[in-house]
Amino acid sequence: MSRQPFQPLADELYDLLGERVTQDEALCREHGVGYSHHACQPPDLVVYPHSTEEVAAVVAICARHQVPVVPFGAGTSVEGQVVALRGGVCIDLRQMHQVVEVSYPDMYVTVQAGVTRNQLDELLEGSGFFFPIGPGVNATLGGMASTRASGTNAVRYGTMKDNVLALTVVLPDGQIIRTGSKARKSSTGYDLTRLFVGSEGTLGVITELTLRLHPYPEAIRAAVCAFPTVEAAVNTAITTIQKGIPIAKVELLDTVMMRAVNQYSDLNYVEQPTLFLEFHGSEGEVEEQVRKVQQYAAENGAADFLWASDEATRTRLWRARIDAAPAALALVPGSRLMGTDVCVPISRLTQCIHETLADAEETGLLAPLVGHVGDGNFHLTLLIHPDDPEGFEKAKALNERLVLRALALEGTCSGEHGIGMGKLPYMPLEHKEALDVMRAIKKAIDPDNRMNPGKLLP
Amino acid sequence: MSRQPFQPLADELYDLLGERVTQDEALCREHGVGYSHHACQPPDLVVYPHSTEEVAAVVAICARHQVPVVPFGAGTSVEGQVVALRGGVCIDLRQMHQVVEVSYPDMYVTVQAGVTRNQLDELLEGSGFFFPIGPGVNATLGGMASTRASGTNAVRYGTMKDNVLALTVVLPDGQIIRTGSKARKSSTGYDLTRLFVGSEGTLGVITELTLRLHPYPEAIRAAVCAFPTVEAAVNTAITTIQKGIPIAKVELLDTVMMRAVNQYSDLNYVEQPTLFLEFHGSEGEVEEQVRKVQQYAAENGAADFLWASDEATRTRLWRARIDAAPAALALVPGSRLMGTDVCVPISRLTQCIHETLADAEETGLLAPLVGHVGDGNFHLTLLIHPDDPEGFEKAKALNERLVLRALALEGTCSGEHGIGMGKLPYMPLEHKEALDVMRAIKKAIDPDNRMNPGKLLP
Repeated sequence: MSRQPFQPLADELYDLLGERVTQDEALCREHGVGYSHHACQPPDLVVYPHSTEEVAAVVAICARHQVPVVPFGAGTSVEGQVVALRGGVCIDLRQMHQVVEVSYPDMYVTVQAGVTRNQLDELLEGSGFFFPIGPGVNATLGGMASTRASGTNAVRYGTMKDNVLALTVVLPDGQIIRTGSKARKSSTGYDLTRLFVGSEGTLGVITELTLRLHPYPEAIRAAVCAFPTVEAAVNTAITTIQKGIPIAKVELLDTVMMRAVNQYSDLNYVEQPTLFLEFHGSEGEVEEQVRKVQQYAAENGAADFLWASDEATRTRLWRARIDAAPAALALVPGSRLMGTDVCVPISRLTQCIHETLADAEETGLLAPLVGHVGDGNFHLTLLIHPDDPEGFEKAKALNERLVLRALALEGTCSGEHGIGMGKLPYMPLEHKEALDVMRAIKKAIDPDNRMNPGKLLP
Repeated sequence: MSRQPFQPLADELYDLLGERVTQDEALCREHGVGYSHHACQPPDLVVYPHSTEEVAAVVAICARHQVPVVPFGAGTSVEGQVVALRGGVCIDLRQMHQVVEVSYPDMYVTVQAGVTRNQLDELLEGSGFFFPIGPGVNATLGGMASTRASGTNAVRYGTMKDNVLALTVVLPDGQIIRTGSKARKSSTGYDLTRLFVGSEGTLGVITELTLRLHPYPEAIRAAVCAFPTVEAAVNTAITTIQKGIPIAKVELLDTVMMRAVNQYSDLNYVEQPTLFLEFHGSEGEVEEQVRKVQQYAAENGAADFLWASDEATRTRLWRARIDAAPAALALVPGSRLMGTDVCVPISRLTQCIHETLADAEETGLLAPLVGHVGDGNFHLTLLIHPDDPEGFEKAKALNERLVLRALALEGTCSGEHGIGMGKLPYMPLEHKEALDVMRAIKKAIDPDNRMNPGKLLP
């Protein structure tokens, strides 16, 4: 869309939001790519609303002018969710960072969509409660809901779909709805909350979220343990889950990733497949969980455990896991990261990882691996140098083979990053005829295809 | 729909299923009401398919003849979900009782929709795994998914929405789709699984379900404990949840219900508000949970606990809770039961229960109460004598006031029974503008409104 015919719309938006509208080219470009490896396509204009009502007014104006709308949180999505494929208006929600209501008795908090993970953590500090979902970056909660984010705690606490009680959503025509309620469960009609969670802005703009809080555990213990093989590490995770141990985190780093973190953070971990573990519970519960998992690990040939109880030591111990992404990037100076993401039934995980590592080796790409293995979910971090188009093509092909492998093993093409534009080609293969139902829903709610067009549905 | 113009459709169905089609009036009537207090409205015809493909063929024939379809499980729904308001074809799924696949390594089982709770329990017996969702009756799993059932274990294990991984669904035009996957999590498109869970047959027919299994706990301990007041009992439950105790069941029976079960089962419990509790975990975990909850109960003025560890004693101890429904019915010989169902944020629960019990007393109805109080969910069991139309009207009015009270307290008009036709009038009040989105989805997927018409959406 060229600037000129866009001006009447822009004028209305300036009237509404004044300085909180920008057509600055650099700012627009900043909003057009996110953390993805896709080419930037900027919106024509960015707005910074402060309230649900302002979002509704913006969306209504866009509806009247038949202009696309792209919601934007922290811009940390990795599959091109914020790329403005058809230009239009980007709604940057970061100035909607108010906490609307906190109820510790009912264990929920209602926040505006622009509140970030870190901000929520700070709010809850010392309250005795916490919000468990944390992707590896400081995303906004609206963005996390939109992409159905999960992260390291999902093995125990579930994903965003399990931790959002209610949403306020602005529909494509500017109407405001509220989904769900503050009750812990409900059986009243279609589950719109779960429909909007994971919809990536294609059905409307999430402006407020009521989130489930969890009691902060009395005791937390962290551990790091190296294994002779990936299989031994994964089998330890499988046994832990099957025995009903409510482990809070169980993360696999493969040999290449361990080398990367050793180099990056000046650590001296054994460079073998390694599990990073975290246990939550009462003192007694944690002790018992630890004892059992140690036993499963020993049965799988694990070497010694490193342990940490207090927060400082825990953070130091987990440094390697926390730094995995920058550590991977540092392996190839000047490179960018293409983060893959598949999830398979846990019994297929070893096979999927083995074949994938062999494939990466054959391709000649340095591809450290990190996995939320308790869920069967893992990421291969492909390092791409901007001046190496051939490497980029190789990485894309490797990623495609990984996706097809995961689907063949009855898994899914994304465990947590979402579809955006990056995983679009695999939607028909994964969902087959069910894709028609998704398309029918999209058409029913957004008949003009103006909400984040070109994403999620091919 | 009269029999005559129906015959061409019937002939096609007879050709397809032979003896597994019936137009017998008594059988049709049996399929027209379920456990609800609504008037029976029979379908014109009942079919008993054996496979997803047969269901698809039946639904396609109905589509061609523009005839309504009502899916039927065990007929245990209580809000009139199976009443054939516009006649048509009832699809009785009880002969679809095959177990399709069991994977203990991946902790899932795939079953046909007609498999019942009890059948699944028997299958899993001794496997080391169990399926946690159990309403008070032997429902089919397809029916439980359709109404988003939960029951006593939901406080720890969630509801059907949290325990269905994937579904096979026959759409209104006869097309078969598969939603979700066997992976533990996914971020790929609209969450159709959660959309069909709770949709009460209004979007299609669920024919197969992949269910999440949970490790059978190493230790189970049950307890019964009387409190001086409802508030004291509820506060004990609230503290238990807030402290992060992963209690498996926490059920409240009020004084009237305790009297009812004492009379019915010849027990001699104290006739005071009473909590029935169950703890799951390792021996050590259970001991610790028990110790803490005993302390919270004591702080709330509880009398002594009765305890049970082995299964026989546990069942005996929980007899009162298990028999609550028949015990309530026995209070008024010859009566029928109108089971209400609301859910509120847990901090509002005491107020909601107090006002409701006072309202029942003022109305002059005997209304024993049982609550899944850990979730803020409770049922008032209204006893109606068929020969007392005035009592019936009073009960309906009491139920309506209860619903309005729950909604005013930011709760929901049904925690687990669903909408059917019984809760239809409250859908606009609870969901407001969001109802338009539900209607748009219904219209997109079932444009001719043939799937269980007249249910869920007013």
